[in-house]
Parts: sequence; C-alpha cells; structure tokens
Amino acid sequence: MEFCDAINKLPNKEENGLFGKSFLRTWDMTDADIEAVAKGACALKALRDSNVSPKIFDSGIAVSMFSKKDTGMDIAFASGCDLLGLTIIDMDKKLGNNSINETAAMASYMTDAVGVCESDFIEKSSRYIKRISDSVEESQKKGIISQKPCVLNLGSDEDSPIQTIADLQYMASRFGGIENLKGKKIAVTWAYSPNGTRSLAVPQGILSLVTRFGMNVVLAAPEGMDLMPDAYDRAAQNAEKSGGSFARTDSMEEAFTDADIVVPINWAPYTFLEKRTELSAANLGTYIDLLEHELRENNKNFIDWEVTEEMMEKTKEGKALLIHDIPADVTDISCIRGEMTAQVYNANLDSLLAEAGMRPYVIAAMIILAKSEDPKAAFKTIAERATKRYF
Amino acid sequence: MEFCDAINKLPNKEENGLFGKSFLRTWDMTDADIEAVAKGACALKALRDSNVSPKIFDSGIAVSMFSKKDTGMDIAFASGCDLLGLTIIDMDKKLGNNSINETAAMASYMTDAVGVCESDFIEKSSRYIKRISDSVEESQKKGIISQKPCVLNLGSDEDSPIQTIADLQYMASRFGGIENLKGKKIAVTWAYSPNGTRSLAVPQGILSLVTRFGMNVVLAAPEGMDLMPDAYDRAAQNAEKSGGSFARTDSMEEAFTDADIVVPINWAPYTFLEKRTELSAANLGTYIDLLEHELRENNKNFIDWEVTEEMMEKTKEGKALLIHDIPADVTDISCIRGEMTAQVYNANLDSLLAEAGMRPYVIAAMIILAKSEDPKAAFKTIAERATKRYF
Amino acid sequence: MEFCDAINKLPNKEENGLFGKSFLRTWDMTDADIEAVAKGACALKALRDSNVSPKIFDSGIAVSMFSKKDTGMDIAFASGCDLLGLTIIDMDKKLGNNSINETAAMASYMTDAVGVCESDFIEKSSRYIKRISDSVEESQKKGIISQKPCVLNLGSDEDSPIQTIADLQYMASRFGGIENLKGKKIAVTWAYSPNGTRSLAVPQGILSLVTRFGMNVVLAAPEGMDLMPDAYDRAAQNAEKSGGSFARTDSMEEAFTDADIVVPINWAPYTFLEKRTELSAANLGTYIDLLEHELRENNKNFIDWEVTEEMMEKTKEGKALLIHDIPADVTDISCIRGEMTAQVYNANLDSLLAEAGMRPYVIAAMIILAKSEDPKAAFKTIAERATKRYF
Repeated sequence: MEFCDAINKLPNKEENGLFGKSFLRTWDMTDADIEAVAKGACALKALRDSNVSPKIFDSGIAVSMFSKKDTGMDIAFASGCDLLGLTIIDMDKKLGNNSINETAAMASYMTDAVGVCESDFIEKSSRYIKRISDSVEESQKKGIISQKPCVLNLGSDEDSPIQTIADLQYMASRFGGIENLKGKKIAVTWAYSPNGTRSLAVPQGILSLVTRFGMNVVLAAPEGMDLMPDAYDRAAQNAEKSGGSFARTDSMEEAFTDADIVVPINWAPYTFLEKRTELSAANLGTYIDLLEHELRENNKNFIDWEVTEEMMEKTKEGKALLIHDIPADVTDISCIRGEMTAQVYNANLDSLLAEAGMRPYVIAAMIILAKSEDPKAAFKTIAERATKRYF
Repeated sequence: MEFCDAINKLPNKEENGLFGKSFLRTWDMTDADIEAVAKGACALKALRDSNVSPKIFDSGIAVSMFSKKDTGMDIAFASGCDLLGLTIIDMDKKLGNNSINETAAMASYMTDAVGVCESDFIEKSSRYIKRISDSVEESQKKGIISQKPCVLNLGSDEDSPIQTIADLQYMASRFGGIENLKGKKIAVTWAYSPNGTRSLAVPQGILSLVTRFGMNVVLAAPEGMDLMPDAYDRAAQNAEKSGGSFARTDSMEEAFTDADIVVPINWAPYTFLEKRTELSAANLGTYIDLLEHELRENNKNFIDWEVTEEMMEKTKEGKALLIHDIPADVTDISCIRGEMTAQVYNANLDSLLAEAGMRPYVIAAMIILAKSEDPKAAFKTIAERATKRYF
Repeated sequence: MEFCDAINKLPNKEENGLFGKSFLRTWDMTDADIEAVAKGACALKALRDSNVSPKIFDSGIAVSMFSKKDTGMDIAFASGCDLLGLTIIDMDKKLGNNSINETAAMASYMTDAVGVCESDFIEKSSRYIKRISDSVEESQKKGIISQKPCVLNLGSDEDSPIQTIADLQYMASRFGGIENLKGKKIAVTWAYSPNGTRSLAVPQGILSLVTRFGMNVVLAAPEGMDLMPDAYDRAAQNAEKSGGSFARTDSMEEAFTDADIVVPINWAPYTFLEKRTELSAANLGTYIDLLEHELRENNKNFIDWEVTEEMMEKTKEGKALLIHDIPADVTDISCIRGEMTAQVYNANLDSLLAEAGMRPYVIAAMIILAKSEDPKAAFKTIAERATKRYF
C-alpha cells in the first residue's frame, strides 16, 4: 500500500530522537527529527485516507491551553489528538493564581499531550511553555503523574513548529520531496493588516526552518518591522551550513521576483512586542491600547505591502506557490485592505486549504514519536491490524 | 431480537437515496428517505436499549456550530454523534471574518458530521447552511478534505428537520405506525410567550412534514402571526397529494376541537423576522431592540392563546397527544404567562420528555444513512458483531 | 500482578451496596461502601499504571454541571470518565428556566454519569443535587430514559465526597492502610484567606468521614467561624462509635501539637452562608456584595491563622502529613497572605499533587460500582482481557 514507503523511513528504537520529548522549537530538533515528523504525518494521512485507524490510545486526555482562541490550530489539535484516541479538555490557561507546577500537574494526571498557544509576551511566553514541559517531566520522575505528557508549542512568541513543519511538508509535496527544495527561491515578506499585532512565531519559524534545507531565502519588510535579533543570525548560519542563502530587502517586489514560493504575512515589530510585554507586566492596559493604536497608525504607511495579481506575476513563471497560515486578512473579504487581494486569495485558496489540512497529521505524528519508543514498529502494528476508521 | 424488524426495512445500496447527502429541509427528501431516517432511528434505539453498541467510527470529529445555545438540540447532537464514535468540537460560528469556504474546510479536515443551528435571519440562515454543505462537497471533490462530512440543519429560519422527524416518529409510535396517522386531526397553533421571538422553523417544518402523511391539519394563529408565504402553499399541495387536508383559522378552540394531536408553539411573525434581518444587515442593533420590544407588546394582545386544561378537554376524548420541542414557556414554571399552564405541562411531561429523547437517534440515523453506502448491511454488521455498549 | 489484591477485596454481586446508587454524601454510605470506593480507586490506578485499560463503555455520555469553574475537580471528572470510555458534555446548569425534571431528562438520554458542583446555597444546593438524582431515577423507571445515570456530588454546601474519599485513601496509603489511621491525631483547622467565601463542604466532609475510622480529631477555628450545627453532632457520634475522639478548640497551635495529619482550610461561617442564601433568594445581589465585604473585613482579625514552618514544627516529629484540596491560597504565591506560607506549600507540594491525583480514580470507581452489578467480576474481566491503554 501507499503508506508502506513512508512507514519504512520512520525511525526505529535506536533512531528515534524524540521519545519522551516535547516540541517547543524546530531549532531544538535535528534534521532527522524534523524529517521523522514530516514522514510520520505523511504515513498517518495515507493510513487515514485508506480508512485505516491509527488509534494508539484506548483512553487518555489531551489538554489544550489557548491564551486566545485561534480557529484553525485549536481544531487541528483536537482532530490530531482524536485520530490517536485522545479526548480533548480545553483548559483555561489562567488557572486562578496557581503555581505553574500545580497547573502542570492538574493538567497531567491522565494526560498524554498538552498543547499550549501563548504568544503575546516576548520571552515570557516561551519560558511559560518550557516551564510546563520541565514541570511535567519532574512530576513524572517523582511519580506524581504516571505518564509524561508530550508538550506541544501551538504558537509562541518565538516559533510555531506545527505550522512550519506542515508548511515544509506541503512545499515538499508540491516540489516532489524535501531534497527538491534545495536551490529554490522563497520570499518571506511582511504584508499589511489592519490588525497589525500578530506574533513573530510564523515568520521567524519559517526562516529558521527553510534555511536548513538549502533554499535561497529572501526576507522583505518595511523599515522598522524587525524580528527578534537572533532570528536573523540563525537564518544566516543555517543557510551557510545548508548551502542555501539568506538575504534581506525592504522591497516586496525584489523578494517576489523569480520566487518559487512566497509567504506574505503580517507581524508586529519586535520593539513593539517588547514594549507591550513591559506594559503588561506593569498592568498598564490602557497604555497597551494606545501602543496598539500607534502601531496600526504606523502600519498605514505600508498599506501598499499587499500581494496583488501584478505582484504574483513577477514570481517564477508567474505561478509561485503561495503559503499562509490561514486565516489570512484578505482585502474585500475580511477587511477593507489586507495582506492580499481577493483575487490572489481565491486563486490560491485550494492550495492554502490543503496546506492547512496537514496540521492535524503533524500534531499526531509528534505525539506518536514522543510516546512510542519504536515508532516504526508502532506504525507497522497499525498497518497490520488494519482497524477500519469507519465502516 | 426486537430491532431485526426495523433493520430489515432499512434501505440497501440500491435504495439508499441519502448516501453522501446533507440534511437541510425535509421537503428536499423523498417519503422513502424520511421513512429510512425514522426506521434507522428506531433500529438504533432498539440496539442501544439491548446494550448493543452501534459505533461505526473508530475515530472522527463532529463539529457543531450554534449561533445561540439551545439546550436540548446541542446535547442531542453530541449524544447522537458519540453513539457512533464521533467526538464533538463546538466551533464558534463567528470565525473572525473568514470566508465560508475557509470556515467549512477548517471545520472538515477530519470531520464526518457538521451540525449547524442558525435561525435568526430570513433566507440568510438557510443560505448559510446550504453554502457550508456545498463548500464541503466541493472541497472533497478537489481532494482538499479526505471525507465529505454530512451537514445537518439543527434549526434554521425555514425548517428543523431533526425535531420534526423525531416528532413524526414519536406520533407514529403512539398511534401504532406512520400509516395510522392518516385521517388523524392535528392542530398546530400559535401560543403566547413573553419572549416572542422564536423562529418559524418548527411550525413550518411540522406543517410541511405531517401534510405528507394524509393527516387533517389545522393551523391556528392570531391575525398577523404569519409564516413564510410558501409554507402555506407547500402544506396545501402536500395535503392534496396525500389525501389529507389543510385549513387555517384564527381560533385555537376551533383547532383543538376533536384534535388527536395538538402542537402549541410560539413564533415571531414572518414580517418581524424579515425586518429584523434587514436591520441586522444594516448594523442597526438598537432598532432591533425596539422592534423586539414592539413585538412583545403586540403579543400581549394574544395572552389568552395559552393551552389550559379546559382547552385540552375540547380535544378527542379530552386526551389529545401534546407535542412540543421542549423547553417550553410554561406559566408559573418558566414565566408568569406562557404557552401552556403548569397543569397541562405536568400532565404531559413524561410524553414530552420521551419525544425529545428521539432526537439523538434521528441524528445518528441521518449520519449512518449519509455515510454508509449500504445502511442495511451496516446495521446487520452492527447487530451481528453485537459489541456491548457497556459491561 | 499488583492490582489483583485490590480486585479480590472488591464487592461481588451480593455485597455491592452501591449498584444503581448516586453519590451525594459519605454519611449516606456504609463503611463497606466507602472502602469499596477506595479499593476500586486503588485497583483502577494499578491497572492504568500497568497500561491496562479499564474502559467499560463503548460509547456513552458524562454530563458535568458546574455552578462555577473549579479547576481541578472539573479535569478530574473528565479524566475519570474518559478512563471508562465516557464522553464529557459540559452543560450550563442554568438551563433557562426549565423545570428540574426537564433539565435532568435533557441531560440523561444517553448519559451514564452526571457530576454536579453547586455549593453556594445552604440546603438549596444539596436539595438541587438530590432532586436531579431522584428525577433521573423516576425517568428511568417510567422508561423515558433507557439507563439510569449515576449522579455524583462534585461539591455541595454540605459535603464533597470525592475529595474526602480521595483524602482518606491518600492518608491510608501514607500510613500503611485505613486500619492504621486508628488512634492518629488529625487537626482540621480554619485558615485565613483573602477570598474568604469558600463553602463548608470539605471541612464538614473531612470531619464526618475521618471520625468513622477511629482517629483523634481536633477541629480548630476562630470564634464565630462555625460549621452547620449537625456537622459537630455527626462527628461526635461517629467518634464515639469508632473508638476515636472529637474535640474543638479556638487555637491552631493546640490542634497542631503532636498531630499526625493537618488539614488547614478556609471556610465561610455557616451564618454568613445562610444569610447569603436568603439574600440571593430575594435577588438582593448588591447586599450580597456588602455581606461578602464585611466577611472579608472580619476575616482580617484572624490573619495570623496561617500555617507557618514554626507551626508545622509543633506537629508529631515536626513532620505531619499536610492535606489540602488544592488549589490553596498561598502567601506570596497566589496572594499577599493566605492559608499557608510559600515554604510550607513548597515543602509539601509533591504530596499535595499526589493526593489530588487520586480524584479521577475515585470518580471512576464510583461509576463502576454504580453501573456494574458485580464489580469484582467486572474488574476481573478488565484484568483478564488486558487491553492496552496505549501501545
């Protein structure tokens, strides 16, 4: 069957570097780890499409903690967990004033996966997710909880590993394999949005990931729309090591010219996010409103950073693959002026939807890799028993 | 066993007109389709009552989208889906400003059933549900989603097919079969409620459905409390075709006299709903409040449209079957003055509760008929494997 | 295997006093009932820790009704139910103005367990839970619902049986068996909290339960911080019968001296709760705010009722077991001044977390005892089939 090939490439017991691990940032994972997740996702999709159920849990809980509702990633997490047999509990992250150890234990007594989405605060958000991961590890070692849940970053201030691995795999599938991404030009560009306060997780995550696979990466942004400083360094170092390249420009047109892949996306500058984190720590909510207002006013200077059909025409043969972690801010559909025109959105919608559909499989693959000592054997058992997903 | 009979009457592959279909309005379904749903519901109830589990999904998602919480239908949807092995995700219908195609795809990657309850806006509500159904069909054809979820209307501006088929089946069970409803008199009457803004879905849906089975239908309402114009035409045409009758009156007493079945229910007049839809499209919320206030004031002219014990005495032998899609507005229980007195409510409560208990089975039957090419074979497999629901 | 011993001590068909029952208060249960729940919880934990799945439901619903969110018990209920194969529906307790019979039936059509947490109103809260239990029993007898759900009190004005049985079992496990609790000194003491409006369920429940097992119980509270009158009588009678003792003091120090176990916990005095219930019935919300303000002001007179390291030093060998139904109000962690210092909290955190981890197993044990005629046979089947919880 179609999925046998993907299964054979999965790590066995000796090769699985992800057993017992959490998924916080792609740059904590080896290339082999990342390929294992991508292959696992492929295998899971192939199994499910063949009506074979990959359920590995007879019971078990998956806890989700979202600091704000993110339609898309929340459903993806629930769907991926359900595929494996886990039941979702949606837990309010703001658990009174409990200590993190208490919160983590409360969430973990019968839990095999914890998904956390918390992106509002520079450094603090990542640290929060890391501490939950550390805490459940400690609680399991002490015997307070029987099984260690795998903690998944569903979007932080720094990275969004599920989104970016789904993107990587989707690009690979469109270009005939990860190896074929080598030498391709990808433009990651800031784009205008009336909201304007999106986190840096996706642009930073994409840059950090694709530079590892030999791509020629161009980052375009208006002056001042900066990422975290180490995101640039990481991208440059990765590119050098992988034989790709990393360049920056302040022209969307330059970035788009001859690009094979384009990733238009809005983000708020690092300096704004840092300031907001400070004000929030000082409980100065009113000044956060003012700060966000100023950001939105400043963004209006860059209202022409919109992907139009003319802009798409400049890409390789006029038909670059367009990548976006939808929902997008689309002109005339979700706002008066947004990241792309309705024409561009509609022309690429099928592809955007197919790409988003990979997220549940990436999540499920991560959980299997973290929970199964020998993922290859686990998948073989799944394929051999061939339980029907439905009849 | 008891359920064998119902199973034998289910459609096989050649007869199943519902495979791959959505359930938007009963008047889009043939009589055979409707009977298949009713029989399927019966068979599922008999199986579960015999401790046989009809789970046909090893994993899978059911998404519910409620524009407002409706206790009863939401639990019915969750229960019916759980019986088949689907996990509920409660999705906020207001998904930012995503396009309907995006919303529908987001909700569908691993989804086998989507239940939508959206009844506030004349025409727009039905169109919304229809577009979700069309969109998932298109996405599945394009390969964006692997399986096509069955879309169920849990209550729109026009119809409430689950409620009305559950009602039909309950009436049939009380009169010894659908065929025995022929010639029976059923009174569908407007009743007073202090809320006064209920949708037309149930009264229109009941009229449209029962006129197909040879019943003598009388609709009673105060002047001005009109349904959508085509609801009257549909009822009249159905009655003519089925050998029943359809009449209108402005007297509850006339309708109740010698009735075998009575259906007292509050609704807001079509003209009000149309006006509210207009005001809502124009974002004139304050004027909607005023409009609703005026409706409630006007309703007070009809405060005597309350079902009392005296009114029930006028029905056939004083003991007509009382049908209501509970929760009802009951005098002295949920309001100062409502659709019926506490005496009438309490005297009929067991029956009302038993009727409401059919809804989860109707939902589950619809999903099996939409997902199984050969429902008769599917049910036979369920009965033969005889997995215990609990031990 | 480790769990065989616990299983052999479970009641068989003749011995099971809990079949078909609800769990409202421990003082409605015999000692044998309570030990059966504790043993069942042990057996379930041992099975799950050995990767054996105790799922007994192939489908089925568990409904939770929380009057306010209680992080901890809500996750415990969801986890315990999931372990047995039940799917959670979180139902808003305030179901419009439906009658209790209607609410209970709506919640029960396919439901095997209903968990209710409602503690705000003296007498009314318990009566509410009792009426739900009576109503589902009646509905099942009449055939309106096919199976009678087991109703669990997750916290009322009077008792919190899941919490206290989990506490009892945890204490037993730390002292080598329930029989070893005989003659041990346990101090149940009021402690300061800036909130100050916690219910009496846990202190009353603990007193009522531990006095049955021959412990020497000392209750310490500032003047005026009274429990319900019958809680004292019950504790005294139990102590006399069991060969233990029950004493009261207004000195935390006296209670802590030489104690084997300490249970510091905040509660609002009975007279306050009674007054609040009255004001609430009269819809005088503003005066409730004032009443709560006065209570908090009065509490400040007892701000030194805080468990410190010095206070802990006074206990048996300075190392009494500290019991609390976390989350606790901890000085410097969740508030400026609370029930205990951060040092005491941190020194006892592992134990507190382990104790809280028993709650899901107690819940699952109650459901099995209520639903299985012969629990010993049910557990033997679970152990023999040895379905893996995950592979």
